[in-house]
Amino acid sequence: MQKIAMLGSGFIGRFYADSLQGQRSKDKIVSIYSRREESARKFADDYQVGHWTVDMEEAIAHREVNMVCISLPNDIHEAAVMLCCKHKKAVITTKPLGRNAAEAKRMLLAVEQAGIFNGYLEDLVYTPKFIKAFESVKSGTIGRILWAKSRETHPGPHSDWFWDIEKAGGGCILDLGCHCVEIARTFIGKDIRPVEVMCWADTQVKPIDAEDHAIGLVKYENGAIGQFEVSWTFRGGLDLRDEVMGSEGTIWMNNFLRTGFEMFTTGKGADYVAEKAESNTGWLFPVGDELNELGYNHMFTDMFRAVEAGTQPRETFYDGYIVNSILDAAYKSARTKLWEPVVLDIWRGREGVSKDSHLTEYDADHYLVKEETTHYGARKVILKHKATGKISEKVLE
Amino acid sequence: MQKIAMLGSGFIGRFYADSLQGQRSKDKIVSIYSRREESARKFADDYQVGHWTVDMEEAIAHREVNMVCISLPNDIHEAAVMLCCKHKKAVITTKPLGRNAAEAKRMLLAVEQAGIFNGYLEDLVYTPKFIKAFESVKSGTIGRILWAKSRETHPGPHSDWFWDIEKAGGGCILDLGCHCVEIARTFIGKDIRPVEVMCWADTQVKPIDAEDHAIGLVKYENGAIGQFEVSWTFRGGLDLRDEVMGSEGTIWMNNFLRTGFEMFTTGKGADYVAEKAESNTGWLFPVGDELNELGYNHMFTDMFRAVEAGTQPRETFYDGYIVNSILDAAYKSARTKLWEPVVLDIWRGREGVSKDSHLTEYDADHYLVKEETTHYGARKVILKHKATGKISEKVLE
Amino acid sequence: MQKIAMLGSGFIGRFYADSLQGQRSKDKIVSIYSRREESARKFADDYQVGHWTVDMEEAIAHREVNMVCISLPNDIHEAAVMLCCKHKKAVITTKPLGRNAAEAKRMLLAVEQAGIFNGYLEDLVYTPKFIKAFESVKSGTIGRILWAKSRETHPGPHSDWFWDIEKAGGGCILDLGCHCVEIARTFIGKDIRPVEVMCWADTQVKPIDAEDHAIGLVKYENGAIGQFEVSWTFRGGLDLRDEVMGSEGTIWMNNFLRTGFEMFTTGKGADYVAEKAESNTGWLFPVGDELNELGYNHMFTDMFRAVEAGTQPRETFYDGYIVNSILDAAYKSARTKLWEPVVLDIWRGREGVSKDSHLTEYDADHYLVKEETTHYGARKVILKHKATGKISEKVLE
Amino acid sequence: MQKIAMLGSGFIGRFYADSLQGQRSKDKIVSIYSRREESARKFADDYQVGHWTVDMEEAIAHREVNMVCISLPNDIHEAAVMLCCKHKKAVITTKPLGRNAAEAKRMLLAVEQAGIFNGYLEDLVYTPKFIKAFESVKSGTIGRILWAKSRETHPGPHSDWFWDIEKAGGGCILDLGCHCVEIARTFIGKDIRPVEVMCWADTQVKPIDAEDHAIGLVKYENGAIGQFEVSWTFRGGLDLRDEVMGSEGTIWMNNFLRTGFEMFTTGKGADYVAEKAESNTGWLFPVGDELNELGYNHMFTDMFRAVEAGTQPRETFYDGYIVNSILDAAYKSARTKLWEPVVLDIWRGREGVSKDSHLTEYDADHYLVKEETTHYGARKVILKHKATGKISEKVLE
Repeated sequence: MQKIAMLGSGFIGRFYADSLQGQRSKDKIVSIYSRREESARKFADDYQVGHWTVDMEEAIAHREVNMVCISLPNDIHEAAVMLCCKHKKAVITTKPLGRNAAEAKRMLLAVEQAGIFNGYLEDLVYTPKFIKAFESVKSGTIGRILWAKSRETHPGPHSDWFWDIEKAGGGCILDLGCHCVEIARTFIGKDIRPVEVMCWADTQVKPIDAEDHAIGLVKYENGAIGQFEVSWTFRGGLDLRDEVMGSEGTIWMNNFLRTGFEMFTTGKGADYVAEKAESNTGWLFPVGDELNELGYNHMFTDMFRAVEAGTQPRETFYDGYIVNSILDAAYKSARTKLWEPVVLDIWRGREGVSKDSHLTEYDADHYLVKEETTHYGARKVILKHKATGKISEKVLE
Repeated sequence: MQKIAMLGSGFIGRFYADSLQGQRSKDKIVSIYSRREESARKFADDYQVGHWTVDMEEAIAHREVNMVCISLPNDIHEAAVMLCCKHKKAVITTKPLGRNAAEAKRMLLAVEQAGIFNGYLEDLVYTPKFIKAFESVKSGTIGRILWAKSRETHPGPHSDWFWDIEKAGGGCILDLGCHCVEIARTFIGKDIRPVEVMCWADTQVKPIDAEDHAIGLVKYENGAIGQFEVSWTFRGGLDLRDEVMGSEGTIWMNNFLRTGFEMFTTGKGADYVAEKAESNTGWLFPVGDELNELGYNHMFTDMFRAVEAGTQPRETFYDGYIVNSILDAAYKSARTKLWEPVVLDIWRGREGVSKDSHLTEYDADHYLVKEETTHYGARKVILKHKATGKISEKVLE
Repeated sequence: MQKIAMLGSGFIGRFYADSLQGQRSKDKIVSIYSRREESARKFADDYQVGHWTVDMEEAIAHREVNMVCISLPNDIHEAAVMLCCKHKKAVITTKPLGRNAAEAKRMLLAVEQAGIFNGYLEDLVYTPKFIKAFESVKSGTIGRILWAKSRETHPGPHSDWFWDIEKAGGGCILDLGCHCVEIARTFIGKDIRPVEVMCWADTQVKPIDAEDHAIGLVKYENGAIGQFEVSWTFRGGLDLRDEVMGSEGTIWMNNFLRTGFEMFTTGKGADYVAEKAESNTGWLFPVGDELNELGYNHMFTDMFRAVEAGTQPRETFYDGYIVNSILDAAYKSARTKLWEPVVLDIWRGREGVSKDSHLTEYDADHYLVKEETTHYGARKVILKHKATGKISEKVLE
Repeated sequence: MQKIAMLGSGFIGRFYADSLQGQRSKDKIVSIYSRREESARKFADDYQVGHWTVDMEEAIAHREVNMVCISLPNDIHEAAVMLCCKHKKAVITTKPLGRNAAEAKRMLLAVEQAGIFNGYLEDLVYTPKFIKAFESVKSGTIGRILWAKSRETHPGPHSDWFWDIEKAGGGCILDLGCHCVEIARTFIGKDIRPVEVMCWADTQVKPIDAEDHAIGLVKYENGAIGQFEVSWTFRGGLDLRDEVMGSEGTIWMNNFLRTGFEMFTTGKGADYVAEKAESNTGWLFPVGDELNELGYNHMFTDMFRAVEAGTQPRETFYDGYIVNSILDAAYKSARTKLWEPVVLDIWRGREGVSKDSHLTEYDADHYLVKEETTHYGARKVILKHKATGKISEKVLE
C-alpha cells in the first residue's frame, strides 16, 4: 500500500488523485501540499486527506508518507526532487521531468545517488490502447518499425503558468511534445539512440513568447523516424492520435476525440458541458472514462507494483532525461533551422546500431521490389537486378 | 475490503477475477469453487487464491468469505443463491438472474427474506460510455427518450453449456438479450413499466434447438420503445452498440468493434491472435482495456461500495427479475407471433403513467410541426391548425 | 440522348435536375411543369429549360419530350402516369410509386398495357456503396443473407404536403420506409417472396395524424428477415445506414452522416449552413457530393441506358408495386398488432422456396455448432449429435 | 463536346477513360496511342475508340481530335506537350507536370507561346470532399489557415516504370507528393508564395534508388505551413487523408480507407478482390465509386467547361510548374538537410505578404491569450500585458 504526499493541488494533481483513490484502490493520499492554503484545504477536504500544508518539505517529510507525487509547475520540479532525495522518499513526477536536459540530468543523478525509487509519470505510454499496441509491436505483428507519429493538439492549457515561458520553460513543444516524443521512442525502441532532430515551431495565434504550434522529426540510429505534431491552437477539443508504420503493418490510435461515443444535442434539453469540449451543442464526442483512457490507472499500478517489488517502473527519470534532451535539440533546431544532434551525456541503450537493410532478396540475381495480384488475378513481381539495377516485371505462372 | 468466494472457474469467472484483483484493488478472492478439481486448482494457482474446493457449499460457508460471486451456468444459479441465503452471505450473480421469471422470482424473494445483500452483475450498464451517456440522459441533454436500442451479436459463445437449451434455458435471447433489455430499460427509466413485447426469433445457422438470432421490441407505459438485436451468427467479432433517440438529441455508442484502435497486419510478422476476433490478419480492431470497456471495474466498485455503505447497488435481483419477465414475454411472443404482455407479479416502479404528449403548442390556434432554416436563410415554420388539422407553412419575417 | 419533361419543381425535382444536367451529361430537360407559374418560370430559368407550363398534359405531350420524370406529391402520381400512357411517353417516377398497392397496381397495369418504358426512381439501391455491396453479395462474399436492415431517419421533410396524410398517403413509413424495404429486399433477393410483416408505429413527437416513428420486420420465404427503422423525429441530421448479416460476413454502410468528412467551426468565421444539418457550429459532417452519394447519377444512367437499349432498368413499376404491397402490410400490422401477410396479386419471382437449412454436417453422427481457436491456440469444435441432440466439445490438436 | 486523343493505355489512362466515358457523358475518346500495338488495340476495343496508333504524333494530329490527354510516364510528358503545341491542340496532362521544374517551365512556356488550352490533371483538388471543404475555407468557416497537411501512402505503384528513377524522375515524393503539395497550397491560398522547404526522405524498405518514404514541410510567406507525408511502404491499402487547422476550425478528410463502407468476410464465400486492398478476407473497406471519390469526374467537367467557355480551368500548367518547383526544393533539402528556398522564375501571385499577426487585442493594456469556461461554469480569460508581458487570469463576473 502506498501512502502518498501530493505536491500541487491544481488540474493535474486532481486528475492524479481521482485515479489514485478511484475504484477500489488500496493506496491513499496522506498529505497534500499547495502553495496556497485555501487550495490545500479544499483538496484535503475533497479527497479526505488527513494532512495539508503550505510547506512543501513538511509534506515530503511527513512520517506516514512513503511516496511523493509531484504535480507542480515545471520550474519547481527540481527543488521538489532534491527534497525527496534529502528525505529519502520514493518520488514520481509529472511530465516533463525538467524544463531542459540540464535540469533533468541533475534530477536523474540526484535520485540515483540518493538511491531512491524514481518514476516518470508519462501517462500516454500507459493508455490501454498504447499498451496493447505496444505488445503487438514487440511481438512483431507489424514488422520492423519505420515511422511513429504522435499528435497532441488542443486549444491551450487551463492554468496561467503554462503561458509564462519562464515558469513553463517553453510552449507546446515542452508541454505536449514530451508525450509525443516518448510515445514514438517507445514504439521504435527505447534502446535505439535518437540521433538528430529537425523542428519547425512558430507562434501563429497566441500573443505569447513561446511557440503555440510545432512539428518535429526525430531520426533514430536504425533509420526509423519519430514525428511529433503539437499545438495550442487546435480547434475542436483534444486531438490525441498516434500512428505507426511497420514493414508488415500499421497501427492507428485515437485516444480522445473519436472513441466510439457520439452524442448530438439541440441544446434545448438541460445544460451540459462536455469536459474539454469546445461546444455544448451539436455533435459531441465524450470519452467514457478519461482516467483510464489517458493511462493514469495503468501508470500508477506499474509505479506502485514496481516500488513494492523493488524493480524499476517502465518510465524512470532516465526516460525523462532522454525526452528533455530530444526536446532541447528540437528547440535548438527551431532556431537554427538545422538538423540538430541529440546531445546525450548519459546513454544506456545500444551503441553502434546500423540502419536496417532495405534489400529483400528474390533470387540470386534480383531483389524483390513488389509482389501483387493483378486485375486478372495473376501474381506479378517487380524485380531489381542486383548488378545492373534494372527494373523488370515478371508474371508468375 | 471484500473477501470473495468465486463460484465457477470458466470464461466469465476469470474475467471477473481479472477485474476484481486487477489494478491496485483491495478486494481478494479467498475461495474458489469449481465442479472439476483440476479447474479449481488451476484457478487458485493463477489468481493466488488460498482455498479451493469442488463442494459449492464449502466455498460459500468458508469463514473468511463475506461475499459470494456466482459465475455458474444458468441452471445452477438458483441452488447457489439458496445456499447463500442459508449461510447469510452477500451474493452477486452473473446474468441472467434465472432461466425464466419463475426462477428469478424465487431467488429475489429468498434473498430478501434472508435479508442478504444482493447484486445483479449486469456489467453493460456500468461501461464507462454507458455511465456518461446515462448522466447526460438524466440531465435532459437529449430530451424525452423515444427509443433505445441495444445490439449484441457475435459468432457464438465459447462454452458448450450455452448451446444446451436445458442448461442455458434458451439461446441468444437469454444470453445476450438480458443485457440489451436492461440497457434500454435504464435509458427509458427503470420506474417506467414495460408493458408488452413483440419478438421475432429463428434458428438460421446453427444446428441447435434454441434461437440463434432474434429481434424484439419492448413497449413502455410512457410510449417509449426499447429494441434488442441479438445473434450468435454475426461474423466479424463482437458487435456491441447502443443507440438512443431523444426528442432533443441522439446517442450512439460502440463499445467494442470501433473504439478508435485500428491495426493492419500482413501476417508476415509474428503470430498474433486478437481476443474474440475472427481473424488475425488484415484490419483488426482490438479493444484497449476490455475489463474497463465492458464495465467490470465500475460494476464491482458500485457493488462493494454499496455493501460497505449498507445501501443498494444500481442493479439488484429485482432488476434481474424484471429482465427475466421481459424475456419470458419475448420468448412467448416468438412462439405466438403476438404482442405479449409483460407479466410482473412484483412491480416497484410508477403506476399509471400516461403516454407522453406529441403536441407542441405554437400559438393559440396552432401546433408546431417543424421549424427550419430554408436554403435562402429564412426561418420557416410548418404548423397544424388545432381545430381543422390543416397543415400550413409560414416564413418568419 | 434523353429529352425530359420534368413534372414538379420542388425539392426533389431540383435534386433530379442537378443530377440530370450535372457533370458532362448529354441529357436535357426540355419542358418543366409546375402547379404554380412562378415556380415553373424560376425552374426554367435556373436550369435553362426552353419550355415551361402549368398544364401537366402539355409538358407530357410536348413533341420534343421522349421521357417524363414525375417529381410530384404522392397523390398526383397516378394521374400523371395515366397521361404518360395516353401519350405513349416513357415514364420514370419518384418514390413511392403509389400511396398504396391499389394505386401502384393500377399504374403498373396501365404502363404495361400502354407498352411504355417505366422506371421506378428508388435512388438508394443505386448509391455507389450499395452497388458495390450488392455485387459482393451476389458473388457470395458474405454467404447466405440472414438479415438486411435499412435505417432512414431525419428531423422531418421540408415541404408541407408530406405532413398532410391525405396528400402523402402516410407518414414516415411511406416516405422513408419505401427506400428501406427495397434496399433489404434487393439484398435478400428480389425473386424471394416477402411473406409477412410486423410493424410498430407511433406518433411520438409531431402533432400530426400520421406516424412519425416506425420499426418493421419483413419475413421472406427463405427465412431471411428484412428490417426498417424510419423516423421524422431523429435529431442530428440525416441518418442513412444499412447493415447486412450473412452466414459468412457482414456489411455496414453509412451513406450520409459519417462518410470520412469532418469539420469543426467555432462559428466565429463566416456563416455556413451545412445542408440538412441541424447546426452550423461545432462538429459538422458534410457529404462531398450528395447527388452521387445518394445514387442519382447511377440511377439515371441505368434508366436511360435501358430505354436506349430497349431493356428494363433495375427498378420498374413492378418493384414499386411490391414495395407498396409490403408497406400496406406494415400499416395494417401497426393497427392490428399482428404479423400481416403481404398480399401480392401480381408476383413474378420464385414460388415455393423453402427455408434455408441450418444444419452443417460435421461427420456422419454430428452437426457442427462452432469451430474456434482457444486461448491456448488449439482448435476446438462444438458438436451436436444428430440422433441424441447432445452437445459436446472436442479439441483438435 | 470534346473529342479526345488519349496518349497512354496503362492504369491511369484506363481510369481516365472510365471517367471520361462514364455515366451519361457527351465526350468521347476518338484516338488512342500506346507504345505497344497490342495495348492500343485492346484499349480501342474496350472503350470503343475508332482510331488507334503506335505513333504518338498521329494520334495528336488526328483531324477529329480537339483535346489531347497525356497519360504517359513522366519522362515523355515534355515530348508529348511539344507535339500538342506543334499541332495547336488543347492539352491536359496527368501529374506531375514534369520530372522537375526545368521541364515543367519549358512546357509551361511552350503551351503559352503556342496559345493552346492547358490543364493540369491534379484530380485530388477536385474530389467532392475537397471541393466542399475548400468552399468552407474560402467562406471563412475555419478562420485563418495555419496548417494544411496531406498524406498519401500505399504499398507502391503498379507499373514498373515508377520504380525506375530515370523514367519516373524520383520516388514517392514526385509520385505522391505532387498531390499533397497542391492540396495544401490550395487550402493556404494559391496566391501565397511558397518560401522554403524542409524534407526528410529515405529508402527504408524497397531495394530501389529513389526514396520510398518522405515527410516535408513547406513554409508560406504568410506564415502558414504545408505538410506532406508520402510513402510506398504503407501497409493496409491506400491511405489518403487531409487535415487543415484554422484559427476558428478544423477539417479532416478521409478520401479512401474510411468512407463509411465496411465489409467483413470469412473468405468462405466466393472470391472477392477489393481494388488496391492488400487482403481479401477479414475487414475490408471498399470505396463506393472510386472515379468520383478521386475527383476524376469533377476534374474533367472543369477542364472541358473551361475550354468550351474560353476560360482557364482551376489547374493549369502554371500550377504544375509551381508544384514541381516546390518538389525540387524538397529533393534538394533531403540531400542538404537544410531548409531550401523555393526557386520560382515565374510567379504570378501576391508579392510581399507579411506574416499574419498573432496578437488579439483584449483591452487597451492586454492581449487575449485564451477565454474558457471553467469547471464551475464561470467565464475565465487569460491575458498578457502589452508592456510588461505578464500573464494574468481574470474570472468574468
